[in-house]
Amino acid sequence: MQSPTDCIFCAIVSGRAAAAIVYRDEHLTAFLDLFPVVPGHLLIVPNRHAKGLTELDADAASRMVAVAQRLAAAVRRSQTPCEGINLFMAEGPVAGQTVFHCHLHLLPRHGDDGFHVGGSFLNRLNPGRDQLDALAASLRSALSTLEATAEHTE
Amino acid sequence: MQSPTDCIFCAIVSGRAAAAIVYRDEHLTAFLDLFPVVPGHLLIVPNRHAKGLTELDADAASRMVAVAQRLAAAVRRSQTPCEGINLFMAEGPVAGQTVFHCHLHLLPRHGDDGFHVGGSFLNRLNPGRDQLDALAASLRSALSTLEATAEHTE
Repeated sequence: MQSPTDCIFCAIVSGRAAAAIVYRDEHLTAFLDLFPVVPGHLLIVPNRHAKGLTELDADAASRMVAVAQRLAAAVRRSQTPCEGINLFMAEGPVAGQTVFHCHLHLLPRHGDDGFHVGGSFLNRLNPGRDQLDALAASLRSALSTLEATAEHTE
Repeated sequence: MQSPTDCIFCAIVSGRAAAAIVYRDEHLTAFLDLFPVVPGHLLIVPNRHAKGLTELDADAASRMVAVAQRLAAAVRRSQTPCEGINLFMAEGPVAGQTVFHCHLHLLPRHGDDGFHVGGSFLNRLNPGRDQLDALAASLRSALSTLEATAEHTE
């Protein structure tokens, strides 16, 4: 995908916009969020523009978690308060995406840091195993169709 | 790491506990959360026990986002309501981790689904560029130290 001229993360990757860059390789760049939700809030982005998770190329996808591991280890060695880590990604406005260049948030967490994502996980549904089994079957079927389509177009 | 006998996700991976399995390969297994926060809530876990992000082995790490992409595509083809996707991982109790076998949440999102992680991103700090630049320098230094240590032990 061509880099949109108005994409702030493309501008950071290319050096046209300043950022506090922490890591860079052939496929990914990591920098500090300008307006962090916690101290040490990092963003890991593909160098090649990708709107969201779906468009992320295979090289960037395969490196993303490994880079998050290295950054998490670096954060834990630094003076940034860090007793835990959250990784977070949003694809689509309904999921909270506001910058449409795929980015993985890395959040160093510590007690009383004011970030409360956990609360959203307390409100759980209870669909029962029959419903889950039927849903799993429909998802496996969708996966098979996708794989068959991928093989057909290769 | 040896599989702890009381780890529920190890039990699911090995087949000792039932689960609505959606995907499985040599390194990763994905299944529906028993108590989803949204319909279609999936967990992607390494087959080999790893407590958190830090302990995740390289093979599992390198496949995790690619598997999330495939599952997201399958969810979008299924009848599960999905207008967006969130990926989420917690390492450590302070980050909200409650099952200590590394897992990546995949949350199919739709309007009015009741999940409000986005709200936590509205409360932003404003450290200024000098502070960010100093922090970035300390993190780059920590990364260099880690890489030097890794090369020394290889």
